[in-house]
Amino acid sequence: MSGKLTIVGIGPGAPELTTPAVSAALADATDLIGYETYINRVPEVAGQRRHATDNRVEVERARHALTLAAEGHRVAVVSGGDPGVFAMAAAVFEAIESGESHWRNLDIRVEPGVTAMLAAAAHAGAPLGGDFCTISLSDNLKSWATIERRLHAAATADFAIALYNAASRARPHQLAQAFGLLAQWKAPETVVLFVRAAGTADAKLHITTLAEAASYAADMRTMVIIGASTTRLIARENAPPFVYTPRSEDYSR
Amino acid sequence: MSGKLTIVGIGPGAPELTTPAVSAALADATDLIGYETYINRVPEVAGQRRHATDNRVEVERARHALTLAAEGHRVAVVSGGDPGVFAMAAAVFEAIESGESHWRNLDIRVEPGVTAMLAAAAHAGAPLGGDFCTISLSDNLKSWATIERRLHAAATADFAIALYNAASRARPHQLAQAFGLLAQWKAPETVVLFVRAAGTADAKLHITTLAEAASYAADMRTMVIIGASTTRLIARENAPPFVYTPRSEDYSR
Repeated sequence: MSGKLTIVGIGPGAPELTTPAVSAALADATDLIGYETYINRVPEVAGQRRHATDNRVEVERARHALTLAAEGHRVAVVSGGDPGVFAMAAAVFEAIESGESHWRNLDIRVEPGVTAMLAAAAHAGAPLGGDFCTISLSDNLKSWATIERRLHAAATADFAIALYNAASRARPHQLAQAFGLLAQWKAPETVVLFVRAAGTADAKLHITTLAEAASYAADMRTMVIIGASTTRLIARENAPPFVYTPRSEDYSR
Repeated sequence: MSGKLTIVGIGPGAPELTTPAVSAALADATDLIGYETYINRVPEVAGQRRHATDNRVEVERARHALTLAAEGHRVAVVSGGDPGVFAMAAAVFEAIESGESHWRNLDIRVEPGVTAMLAAAAHAGAPLGGDFCTISLSDNLKSWATIERRLHAAATADFAIALYNAASRARPHQLAQAFGLLAQWKAPETVVLFVRAAGTADAKLHITTLAEAASYAADMRTMVIIGASTTRLIARENAPPFVYTPRSEDYSR
């Protein structure tokens, strides 16, 4: 049996941000499985089967991929960004752990990619240049109390904070709630970035402060980065400022 | 004046993990500047000048790059991994902020890459599948007290923790100190990973627990990942276990 399963991350959107290793795995696959937005970004290969699904059935999708791999197919599970950061890799491993025992002995690999926060940070400058944390604001799979506890810890640590799943149609108010909590612990002038469609030709940056952040709208494609106390702007003529977090803590605003 | 400066991340080591966007920026540059280990990984281009330096002079190197760009050259500052994560981007912005005022109006871009923790995580499975934080253990640019405070917050939040600069010849004992601190707040059976040379053909994974971790040696090329309480192993026949952190917090070991 020559079946295999590769969980790939195609990066944030622009084709030139997909690694050659991922492109090779995609070209070699007999079957692609993933959310249709990501599948549609993959160049077509004659004879390759494409199993596009909606965004809500990760573990089912993972089981389907494992079943096909166990039948001898070369399956690529397609994530945006990096598959290990709020994407399909964990879902596949959940499916393996709770699934058929022979699945764990399949040839299974994860191919890393450029995750959204890195593209968003690069677009703005280097806001993740010091220590930072990465939190999904979705409470579909964890409690809001856990998210609050993590935001508090992040503020205590003075981490820069990259927020994934900052807002969706089903959760329009939690981002403002998160800003409200952070405002109890962080200075009102803390830098906040909204980067929409980072790593694509449509990327758009909005720079604001924690005091003003709640009045700005985010959607599913928006990465939100909340600065550390040292995160700062470098003003420019005729261009938005650079935003960066110095490596040293000996900076004051 | 057509000078420009692009700060690129060539990824963790394997050429097939360098994005096409970064390869294009490198091929287009008249001048490469960076730590020689990274410069040596870049394919040679006829006529291109290579300014290789040692690992200790980031801001000087950044000033040199800015000076060349201001003279009209197309300069690529070369980082390993992603330039925005404990690499050259923050150093360049520090140099811009404290340097010549015309530097801020140069054409300056950051090209993201696959940072080491993503390659290390992919090699092991998906240990960063939940919320996580990213800490440099080096106290060259911040105090050890700050590092302790951040480790404590990370434990309080039950983040998985990716440690950069976990050990070097000048700082051989701090990693064991960090494990000792974390052991006060996290369970002894917490999963700890050492991934050496992640994202290269020589990648090597060692899986252990927090109780045992201090007896294992790390070096400059080792990424250390300390699991969340939910991080778990999936045993396999004839292969190391998969290591992953489920997306949901409703897992117990």
